[in-house]
Amino acid sequence: MIEFPAHPITPIGIIHSCYPEKFGIPRQPGLVKSSTGRLELLPPCDREEMVRGLDAFSHLWILFLFHGAVAEGWRPMVRPPWLGGQKRVGVFASRSPHRPNPIGLSVVRLTGISQEKKGLFLELAELDLLDQTPVFDIKPYVSYSDAVTDAECGFIPPPRMVQREVLFTKEAEEACAIYEQRTGRQLRALITETLEQDPRPASQRQQVREYGMALWKVNVRWQAEGERFLVVGIEGVEKTE
Amino acid sequence: MIEFPAHPITPIGIIHSCYPEKFGIPRQPGLVKSSTGRLELLPPCDREEMVRGLDAFSHLWILFLFHGAVAEGWRPMVRPPWLGGQKRVGVFASRSPHRPNPIGLSVVRLTGISQEKKGLFLELAELDLLDQTPVFDIKPYVSYSDAVTDAECGFIPPPRMVQREVLFTKEAEEACAIYEQRTGRQLRALITETLEQDPRPASQRQQVREYGMALWKVNVRWQAEGERFLVVGIEGVEKTE
Repeated sequence: MIEFPAHPITPIGIIHSCYPEKFGIPRQPGLVKSSTGRLELLPPCDREEMVRGLDAFSHLWILFLFHGAVAEGWRPMVRPPWLGGQKRVGVFASRSPHRPNPIGLSVVRLTGISQEKKGLFLELAELDLLDQTPVFDIKPYVSYSDAVTDAECGFIPPPRMVQREVLFTKEAEEACAIYEQRTGRQLRALITETLEQDPRPASQRQQVREYGMALWKVNVRWQAEGERFLVVGIEGVEKTE
Repeated sequence: MIEFPAHPITPIGIIHSCYPEKFGIPRQPGLVKSSTGRLELLPPCDREEMVRGLDAFSHLWILFLFHGAVAEGWRPMVRPPWLGGQKRVGVFASRSPHRPNPIGLSVVRLTGISQEKKGLFLELAELDLLDQTPVFDIKPYVSYSDAVTDAECGFIPPPRMVQREVLFTKEAEEACAIYEQRTGRQLRALITETLEQDPRPASQRQQVREYGMALWKVNVRWQAEGERFLVVGIEGVEKTE
């Protein structure tokens, strides 16, 4: 048996994202175009020269710590959402956050690089990461080697098979408009695209009930009725961010 | 300033590959179809149930330690081979092994899973990893989210722009045939595909000289003359592996 010492890795940055809680995060990146955020680079990696040339790439890999899952540890087998939460597969045949080394891998769109007084930030979109996620590495996405278009993906069905219809009450529409004017963020599109993916656990999909979902610092209240979701209210629109 | 503790990560496996040295390793995965190897899973991750279902996927992500580069540390800017080793870019705009957290990301083809008396192995091809590479994680390649076919890749030219002609002497041909019969490994194809990518550093491309390149446990001697490479000898074919 070969033995290795544990290798220490330290975050080079931290994510500020529209998803303060796990509920609502898309199950794969790229599905929600309006999910935005920033990667704040931390010392000693907050030097502009370290990201010079990165703006030539439209997409990045982010290697990050599944910080919301670390405390729960890992299990040898998991029930991935792709299989409706029923069938179990080996943890290495899944993208589950509960892994022996809880390192996540996500592709995001790079929309800009901002050097500000308070730090160096990468502006991101199509993000599926929890707010405050520690980041270990950034790599440019190189399509000629990273995009394996003919890869076979076994049991994973194509996405958006269950895309939902999303409606807003007049009150919710107005709250979105106020928020968008204040922040410049496309809240209505973010809510619509997030709900279209149906964030409910598979076990709750037959129920008629109301949900709360945190996006940025607002709470979105919505009702699920079969294939149709109704956004009934947005709380906290006036809060300072 | 936010501070994080270093997070310890321990290898879950180790790579046994056809590349015992850095020289010859393709600059990106997928270019050399005949480069094969195995991932040996280490305790406590050497249980068959942990990879159950993985055989439904044709490709895997491997997250690994750049163990050959750790001792050299990192620099904020690097000269990637894509730019002919001349222009410098930020380390985060490169796939350089000399990174703040020396974690590599590589896509490989999964050709089988072997449960043997001496351990549990994943059989891999299209591999660009150094022999004895410690592995931190394996993830299935999910093409609908991982394959971003319209990603823009800035300064990186498409591969195989400088594909070389590779010829063998009669002696080298015969040594390959003997090796292939003994091991079942496609050595001739591996040499051809590896040399077609021109493994020489950009600074040596104008020289006429002889090279030695280690593949598995043999030493391949070849001569470079302009656009044409001649394999003149294979040493160590009779060695026990």
